[in-house]
Amino acid sequence: MKPSIPKGTRDFSPVEMARRNFIFNTIRTVYEKFGFQQIETPAMENLASLEGKYGEEGDKLLFRILNSGPVVDQIREKNGEVKISDITEKGLRYDLTVPFARYVVMHQNEITFPFKRYQIQPVWRADRPQKGRYREFYQCDADVIGSTSLLNEVELVQIIDEVFNKLGVNVIIKINNRKILAGIAELIGEKENLTNITIALDKLDKIGEEKVLEEMIQNGASKSATEKIKPFLYISGSTNEKLSKLNELISDSEIGKKGIEEVKTIVSSLATLDHDQSNVELDFTLARGLNYYTGAIFEVKINDQRSSFNSSVLGGGRYDDLTGIFGLPNVSGVGISFGVDRIYDVMDECKLFDQLQISPSATKILFVNFGAAEEKYCLQLLKQIRDNGINAEIYPDSVKMKKQMSYADDNKIPFVAIVGSEEMQNELITLKSMKNGEQEKITISKLIKKLKHQY
Amino acid sequence: MKPSIPKGTRDFSPVEMARRNFIFNTIRTVYEKFGFQQIETPAMENLASLEGKYGEEGDKLLFRILNSGPVVDQIREKNGEVKISDITEKGLRYDLTVPFARYVVMHQNEITFPFKRYQIQPVWRADRPQKGRYREFYQCDADVIGSTSLLNEVELVQIIDEVFNKLGVNVIIKINNRKILAGIAELIGEKENLTNITIALDKLDKIGEEKVLEEMIQNGASKSATEKIKPFLYISGSTNEKLSKLNELISDSEIGKKGIEEVKTIVSSLATLDHDQSNVELDFTLARGLNYYTGAIFEVKINDQRSSFNSSVLGGGRYDDLTGIFGLPNVSGVGISFGVDRIYDVMDECKLFDQLQISPSATKILFVNFGAAEEKYCLQLLKQIRDNGINAEIYPDSVKMKKQMSYADDNKIPFVAIVGSEEMQNELITLKSMKNGEQEKITISKLIKKLKHQY
Repeated sequence: MKPSIPKGTRDFSPVEMARRNFIFNTIRTVYEKFGFQQIETPAMENLASLEGKYGEEGDKLLFRILNSGPVVDQIREKNGEVKISDITEKGLRYDLTVPFARYVVMHQNEITFPFKRYQIQPVWRADRPQKGRYREFYQCDADVIGSTSLLNEVELVQIIDEVFNKLGVNVIIKINNRKILAGIAELIGEKENLTNITIALDKLDKIGEEKVLEEMIQNGASKSATEKIKPFLYISGSTNEKLSKLNELISDSEIGKKGIEEVKTIVSSLATLDHDQSNVELDFTLARGLNYYTGAIFEVKINDQRSSFNSSVLGGGRYDDLTGIFGLPNVSGVGISFGVDRIYDVMDECKLFDQLQISPSATKILFVNFGAAEEKYCLQLLKQIRDNGINAEIYPDSVKMKKQMSYADDNKIPFVAIVGSEEMQNELITLKSMKNGEQEKITISKLIKKLKHQY
Repeated sequence: MKPSIPKGTRDFSPVEMARRNFIFNTIRTVYEKFGFQQIETPAMENLASLEGKYGEEGDKLLFRILNSGPVVDQIREKNGEVKISDITEKGLRYDLTVPFARYVVMHQNEITFPFKRYQIQPVWRADRPQKGRYREFYQCDADVIGSTSLLNEVELVQIIDEVFNKLGVNVIIKINNRKILAGIAELIGEKENLTNITIALDKLDKIGEEKVLEEMIQNGASKSATEKIKPFLYISGSTNEKLSKLNELISDSEIGKKGIEEVKTIVSSLATLDHDQSNVELDFTLARGLNYYTGAIFEVKINDQRSSFNSSVLGGGRYDDLTGIFGLPNVSGVGISFGVDRIYDVMDECKLFDQLQISPSATKILFVNFGAAEEKYCLQLLKQIRDNGINAEIYPDSVKMKKQMSYADDNKIPFVAIVGSEEMQNELITLKSMKNGEQEKITISKLIKKLKHQY
């Protein structure tokens, strides 16, 4: 039999893990710098917690767990007259937001609000696999729940900026506000049709104006609405110019003006912070698919000519009633979600990992194995080295030197220690640098000092 | 609706995550110190890779994923005449060993052997939940594949010892060898019946001699075999005494003697290393359930009167043909698996976390929020602090001081910064220690220095 893994899933080799861990650790470090605390939730949730939360399309993409026990026998006994809920009651996590809402409601009495949580775990979607889209992928979420302050939005933008900076990835951070979209819907006479307009607008980037307007009409908007919306589609200029142009257009909508105020507050706070604003872009057509957003919305796009990625690598926004679906109404929250797998693909495509010199192995030194006596002697040296917190190995078998050296080479181990009978007699170690081939004979204490300082 | 999570699964709060991460990081650090490299495999495997690998009982405990698409409609159309393979072809990972074997076979051309890999991921089993047994739990595995050297066994014992030492958990590391068990089976005339004898012997701890012998007979062993096995059940004394007693009993079995040789080599290497051997115990009845072991076997039990745990917290051993099931025969490997969830429960039960003073939050300082002007001022101070790599927060809303202080308290944040109009004027920060209540007025640069040195 030839082994394989399910479509849309992946194995990660040591090299890939080292790179992935670099991304995870960067995000984790920045989250903690801003006071976020980690939680984890189970991979399996009751379907009652998942179904109906991601739209009809989302329900279809849930991975469902077959109930335990003699399910097939039961199906036969019933001559196939079964509902899906008869054979499955659990599903795999589809995102981290809904499980988080469920967590907050279940643990509300243990939580001190505002609750700043982060969560780094895989999610599963039975989507058609394609470039940048997997059936198992990681999300890295941070949310603040129980605070309406726009300071949270400001800090989240700071976090986004710092993470991509540290990763060396050039991005555009797009900002909009659902209240602005609501204002636009109001002004074009389609207040009740906000969701459909939002969904259509969200595709402007991909399908262009004509098709967006068509879709609006298909979704029930009037012909005049599609005329009235046009001026909103191409507001350009600097951040301030955009805001004042929008202000003129939207001045008749209370909710629209509220949205502008919120965006202004965020943008001006960022300005005070000497935040490099060249990568922040207001985009009043930015909509994000998810219905639960009610205030700020964020999206990050790659800004690098070497990358062919069009889809977003981060999304987020404010939601005023996410926990309501689980019975805890009126708790406002705001959050972001890094799409690590896409970020990885972009970094790979742009050859950013090569510059970072991330090594698959953390081993600093490999002892060559010359046989039983030398092995016993080396084990004691190794113990001293490891007791000093240095990662070290001995080749487990006394095979040909060449094979042992190519093991060091393949694993990018920077130093090799050669200890034969002569070295044992003189209590010295022949140390070889794998970078430049230089050799020296040194004592164990000098070796430890050298390896400690080198890293 | 009242939200819930599936039976046998758990949420992890920030406090629990901090403690779990402490355990994970301890294991990871020691693994890397000995040159192991991380891989990850998908949560879902094709059922073809999983079925038949864990015995009949194991197959029943697999969580199966329902195929996507209109499965229920298909069931109805066929009037329920379906096989389980018609409705499910993927399952959740049951352990990390089989996916690793699959990984090695699939990636054999990219791997440099000997391959020292570690893997820290959750596994799922539809077992009846009880104390210390969950349906989703983590395994932390290290395996060396492609080397027959007993040095690997020695280093794995060193790893086990170092990890539990660092965790502060007192344990007994039990060692045996499948070749010794094979020798015993040979000597009692039950060579062909090794597996059944092994399974029975494995329960000696739990059900006692009488029941073990009964089970042997039920499984087809002869009455005389159960008489002949008795001397092997209670070999006592020091490690050397045990070995020489066993040697006398087993001298007629070639494979048995080979097993003794292997155990001797491991034990004597550990002795050379000044390894504290008081926690290593030879136990010739130790069998471990899994059939694929062929050489050394390891098991770790808790040795602490405060703990009520009887089950093992680590298992492992050598297998000569694990990858054979996936088409790559004759590759020997040896590995161990830490049961982190049980280790957590033991540490909790023995109150070991209290001594370790693990904090749920990594935040060092909380800025009190007095309103818009102060907030803007503090944001700039925060930026300087964070740019120095210090985790810092500002309370997002300008609510009552008392509420903000109890947020710091609940999250165990050690310092609070109070910056009102007076402090802004004097360019000072009132710094309050949450440990002793002491206050001082200092500059931002002194504050940064202080927080950097404190940690």
